Amino acid sequence: MKIVAIDTSTKQLSVALSDGQQILAEASYVTSLNHATKLMPLLERMMQEVNWSPRDLTRIVIADGPGSYTGLRIGATTAKTLAYTLGIDLVPVSTLELMAASAGSTGRIVAIQDARRGTGFVGFYEEGQLVGEEQHTVIADFVKTLPTDTKITGDTDKFTTELQSFTIVDPAFRAPRAGVLALLGAKREPVETHAFEPRYLRLAEAEAKWIEAQRHD
Amino acid sequence: MKIVAIDTSTKQLSVALSDGQQILAEASYVTSLNHATKLMPLLERMMQEVNWSPRDLTRIVIADGPGSYTGLRIGATTAKTLAYTLGIDLVPVSTLELMAASAGSTGRIVAIQDARRGTGFVGFYEEGQLVGEEQHTVIADFVKTLPTDTKITGDTDKFTTELQSFTIVDPAFRAPRAGVLALLGAKREPVETHAFEPRYLRLAEAEAKWIEAQRHD
Repeated sequence: MKIVAIDTSTKQLSVALSDGQQILAEASYVTSLNHATKLMPLLERMMQEVNWSPRDLTRIVIADGPGSYTGLRIGATTAKTLAYTLGIDLVPVSTLELMAASAGSTGRIVAIQDARRGTGFVGFYEEGQLVGEEQHTVIADFVKTLPTDTKITGDTDKFTTELQSFTIVDPAFRAPRAGVLALLGAKREPVETHAFEPRYLRLAEAEAKWIEAQRHD
Repeated sequence: MKIVAIDTSTKQLSVALSDGQQILAEASYVTSLNHATKLMPLLERMMQEVNWSPRDLTRIVIADGPGSYTGLRIGATTAKTLAYTLGIDLVPVSTLELMAASAGSTGRIVAIQDARRGTGFVGFYEEGQLVGEEQHTVIADFVKTLPTDTKITGDTDKFTTELQSFTIVDPAFRAPRAGVLALLGAKREPVETHAFEPRYLRLAEAEAKWIEAQRHD
């Protein structure tokens, strides 16, 4: 098995190559959303480093959001194009699940992606399994429902007040890693390539209304 | 603070750039000990990606072993040359401590580096702190002394029989990461650059004698 894993869903770009057992190459850059120009050159260099050619590939694993619109579009387009042209499997994995898995901890973990104005996309994971559903919520209210031994990862810097009574995952483990993504995606069922769409950050109803109101000013 | 972290002590090459708070860039390749040709080009590319020039650097963090002789020589030479020519701090961190920290777990962790013929270099860490000393030992004997809740990382594939009653760290967290190294080294005291030497895998007395005996055949 020769897997390429790509995560473009946050401000970080992360790419990994794996044989399904171990990570052979992994690179992550905080790019300030400059994914469009960086993704393909990075992937090409990494393939050269491990002596893989595109025809060797058997699977593309992609973090499918929630996340930034532009980043997800670039990642999804690249992943779909590779999967289609090479005729290989495309496997999406939730960005929140990836964040929780990249934390490396056992137990209860919540992954948060900032969605502005006190809200976030959140996923609650217990021993790697999603509990309930990923949701868009007000963080101050959401954290009141959490057991006190829950660890928090993701955009924790945006919610320091709300999260002050919880353990925050160490900075070295707070960003999603494509190497973790590759191993998560190695065992999953692929989806139908053409039908695949990433899950963008949807606006909260209030936020959508507010933006709409500005337009009519 | 602008930190370069380099780990060449295992069969994997890992390089990271950090501001001391977060990891800005991180790349790891399983290189089959081809570190000599790959390290500098990789470092140069990564510096370009984050728009750093060598003169911006303030600190070099290097995994100082134990590990492979050739890999450690390349890493140590590169790190000393950079630290000397730029007049900046050089900070060594144990490879075993780095392995334990890269596992991302809390609690008790043992990091093992294979030293052949049933022996290994081992470090026992509890909540990130070294317990006792790093040592070269027979793994089958050493594991009998460990609490049963100890997690094991590093070259676990070489000791599957000896380690069968322990929890093995997930493959995605079993390799040392230079990003973790950068953050570990951000807070440490630097050493005197010229005096710095890496800690090679020393041969066990029996192994050294055996090799010596072969020479006289």
